[in-house]
Amino acid sequence: MVNRTVEDIGEEGIIEDIKRRFTSSIPLGIGDDTALIESVERHYIVLTIDSFREDIHFKWDYFEPEDVGWKAVAVSLSDVAAMGGDPEYLLLSLGIPGGTNYRIIQSILTGIGEINKIHNMALIGGNVSRSSNGFTIDSVVIGRVERGKEIRREGAQCGDLIYVTGRPGSSAIGLTLLRQGISTNNIGQEFIRCHRRPYPRIREGKILSTYGIATSMIDISDGLIKDLHHICITNRVSASIDTNAIPCPPVSTELAYLLPSEPIGYALYGGEDYELLFTARNADREKLENLCQQEGLIATCIGEIIPGEEGKIIDKASGKVLPVKGYNHFSYS
Amino acid sequence: MVNRTVEDIGEEGIIEDIKRRFTSSIPLGIGDDTALIESVERHYIVLTIDSFREDIHFKWDYFEPEDVGWKAVAVSLSDVAAMGGDPEYLLLSLGIPGGTNYRIIQSILTGIGEINKIHNMALIGGNVSRSSNGFTIDSVVIGRVERGKEIRREGAQCGDLIYVTGRPGSSAIGLTLLRQGISTNNIGQEFIRCHRRPYPRIREGKILSTYGIATSMIDISDGLIKDLHHICITNRVSASIDTNAIPCPPVSTELAYLLPSEPIGYALYGGEDYELLFTARNADREKLENLCQQEGLIATCIGEIIPGEEGKIIDKASGKVLPVKGYNHFSYS
Repeated sequence: MVNRTVEDIGEEGIIEDIKRRFTSSIPLGIGDDTALIESVERHYIVLTIDSFREDIHFKWDYFEPEDVGWKAVAVSLSDVAAMGGDPEYLLLSLGIPGGTNYRIIQSILTGIGEINKIHNMALIGGNVSRSSNGFTIDSVVIGRVERGKEIRREGAQCGDLIYVTGRPGSSAIGLTLLRQGISTNNIGQEFIRCHRRPYPRIREGKILSTYGIATSMIDISDGLIKDLHHICITNRVSASIDTNAIPCPPVSTELAYLLPSEPIGYALYGGEDYELLFTARNADREKLENLCQQEGLIATCIGEIIPGEEGKIIDKASGKVLPVKGYNHFSYS
Repeated sequence: MVNRTVEDIGEEGIIEDIKRRFTSSIPLGIGDDTALIESVERHYIVLTIDSFREDIHFKWDYFEPEDVGWKAVAVSLSDVAAMGGDPEYLLLSLGIPGGTNYRIIQSILTGIGEINKIHNMALIGGNVSRSSNGFTIDSVVIGRVERGKEIRREGAQCGDLIYVTGRPGSSAIGLTLLRQGISTNNIGQEFIRCHRRPYPRIREGKILSTYGIATSMIDISDGLIKDLHHICITNRVSASIDTNAIPCPPVSTELAYLLPSEPIGYALYGGEDYELLFTARNADREKLENLCQQEGLIATCIGEIIPGEEGKIIDKASGKVLPVKGYNHFSYS
């Protein structure tokens, strides 16, 4: 297999290899025209697609092929997490540049297998074709959620509290370190891992769905402020944020010296964290905080929903409107 | 809107535009983290993904943007047809080069809307991002098929007859004409239409599924011989083909003069026809032919399944083995 290219293996060879690596017990999986899955009573089917493209979403300078496979699936899984859904199946569309060494494909598949295993997901079909320039992986995650237990973006009301899981900004710090060619100290490694191998909050989303305690939810893929703005616009409300309450990434003095921005800047505007941002009734605060303790769910209250149809995000301390910016696929260059 | 680029419109502007154009009545559609659909009792959910990439699957020299939208969806629909399934929902992933005039996107969406309307399909979600080089559209079609009524690749047995719908080779002739810069006479136009706007055989697949008369089925996307070979390999059988029976495209003398190959060459080896190739029991021949007449289903018997695990395709007249070749995404260049 050493130094064989995708042309040597061929489209059917690649599909056969994928079939060997990923087995599942659904009615019909890889190798037919379509996959077939069972439907489930009293549940909705959850569906999402996301793409992961070379030079747009990742650069080979900063990623191992295993990371590319992992993250390409993680981005779609995070959308399912944000619905409170349970992921079950994966469809993949791989666009592969001509001349690619097949070992790179095998390593990408290894990364996909790793994240699939963690979430007990089955690869059930897909598509392999040549790409004229750069790798492109589209992942479709299919799952389920009990009817009425889905957590939509719509549902936040004035007075609701705003929570965020984990420590947003970690991924953006990791990317900054990678861009600066820094990968030396241990704490830096953890940020780099957050960027390369984000861990979608499936477990957290399912807990919130099961207990029916979140009134709205979104994943932070574009940045905390930008995704909170999405929630506000959807619900025709505004938000007041206590920036001091935001769980910033733990940056050492040594590391802070290397970063061009303060940790709060990354926490508010850094994208690709795939943490969950959700709202809950003020009256449920104690119940939610007990639940977090009981289930080991790390979520921090960072503000509240306030009136104002225009979706403003207000800094509670200063009363100033925080600018809404973040990742836009068509204006970041 | 004249001369505005995708950067002017922005990712969210594009999604809003898509939301306005495509409305649906599913539990949750465009604009949330995932789509939600209802599951259906006694049915399987049919799922497929296919990609349509600039310079790999199409060139702008030969396609209008509306055709690109149409064909990007048609390729996935054809897989659902080959399962005997009923398409219901569409997910789209659009990769758009920077600087693209937004009118091109609108025209692509128009083409998508046209094919969706014909098949009564709802666009329920997707993803928009920048592509570093060339357009790329991944389409996911989700549908349903009654349990036990799906038509798999597996199922063909020795003695089964082999049928094909329509006139395979038409798309390849259309592509040849486009490459030669010929688009003058009327019959040429029809071949070009077959290449640009293939009509997936959803209706035909559903009829065959309803009557439970096909023992195996595949769509001809890689070429008749290559896809028949897929059926043979899956079922560990071979096939005998009567090349005189194959419904070749109706090429006029004038047109034949312009084509480097005979019509039978296109019919056997030309890809992207999206006709259906299926098998049926010899005992069901009369029943099937009555059904075709009754339903206006155009299908021609072109041979039969014979013993031989190695999946050979034999030319009945000469007794010679036909070479298995056709479209391979990694070796055609």
